[in-house]
Amino acid sequence: MKIQLAVDRVSIDKAKSIIKEAEPYVEIIEVGTALIKDFGMNSISEIKSSFPDKTILADIKTIDEGAYEFKAAFLNGADIATVMGAASLDTISDCYQVAYELNKTMMIDLLEVDDEKIHQLKKFRDAIFCVHLASDKREGNLDTLLKSFKEKFPEISNIAVAGGVSLDNIREIKEAAVEIVIIGEAITKADDISKSAKEFREMI
Amino acid sequence: MKIQLAVDRVSIDKAKSIIKEAEPYVEIIEVGTALIKDFGMNSISEIKSSFPDKTILADIKTIDEGAYEFKAAFLNGADIATVMGAASLDTISDCYQVAYELNKTMMIDLLEVDDEKIHQLKKFRDAIFCVHLASDKREGNLDTLLKSFKEKFPEISNIAVAGGVSLDNIREIKEAAVEIVIIGEAITKADDISKSAKEFREMI
Repeated sequence: MKIQLAVDRVSIDKAKSIIKEAEPYVEIIEVGTALIKDFGMNSISEIKSSFPDKTILADIKTIDEGAYEFKAAFLNGADIATVMGAASLDTISDCYQVAYELNKTMMIDLLEVDDEKIHQLKKFRDAIFCVHLASDKREGNLDTLLKSFKEKFPEISNIAVAGGVSLDNIREIKEAAVEIVIIGEAITKADDISKSAKEFREMI
Repeated sequence: MKIQLAVDRVSIDKAKSIIKEAEPYVEIIEVGTALIKDFGMNSISEIKSSFPDKTILADIKTIDEGAYEFKAAFLNGADIATVMGAASLDTISDCYQVAYELNKTMMIDLLEVDDEKIHQLKKFRDAIFCVHLASDKREGNLDTLLKSFKEKFPEISNIAVAGGVSLDNIREIKEAAVEIVIIGEAITKADDISKSAKEFREMI
């Protein structure tokens, strides 16, 4: 199980210093949506150039203009980019095509996506499927969402999980045997970032 | 009927020169999604400071972290910001709250949103509802989409329309009597931007 560290809502310099502390314990660095919307593509290229050996995910949350946005993310150094499952199938196909041509990876963010649509998305076999509880959501529980997803879609194997992963629920998530666990504030806002990242690493 | 000029996929300087030519004929200037994702919040503040008397819409397409993104867009000079109808109701409520507190406006982008969800969104009475055909979409027709929306939701009056508005379909859209028509490449990619913007203005 890989750890994806989501960094967000800080300056690019602060992002780099956070990543530096957690780096030894994580495999994927996520340039968060707010970092991209605050600072543009520069946020991706700056972080890639500071951490050239890490896998970089651009959480660009594309929902239209798939080819344009995916090309921009990949050409700026991303190895993985995200498209919303709520986007049209044409948009997701365009993203998939760009990822394929550039030998990169597409992650589909399943935020608020219903089961019928998920069935349509299964054809994107090389994609990573991200089970995601919205951070704004006042109800719902990540463990329950993940368990339900695994029961309903046993044929989907390349799974990431995001939205409130903490030291309190990491055991349950580990048991669900997903490929990638996405952790944000539980590491980035910890008093000791390095120690917190190490704790997660040891628990999984 | 107001014209919203969508500017996108160019540098900020080029965006400004495009806007300058079309400005006399449009009421709202849209800082397009790609402009925000390419250059960050700076794209909004630069365009607002160059055109302080125009209404500025930030097409930030928020789908999570509603309060954070809406505050950032408004504090950087946007008068209107967009949230995806596909977002959770909690996210849209957060955006609505921020818009209300700052005396700004929320536009809900109905891209790929089903009727059931649109019924749930009607409670956001002061929002602008944007009927939107994805630019990536290979099938579908904007006139048909708009007519069907007006038939199904006669109680929604504050409507914008986007996704392939051109001189070929502007008459049909005018007949549908929407509040805002969003025009992008039909103006921004025209040989004579000013002339094209004037033509649209005269036709509506």
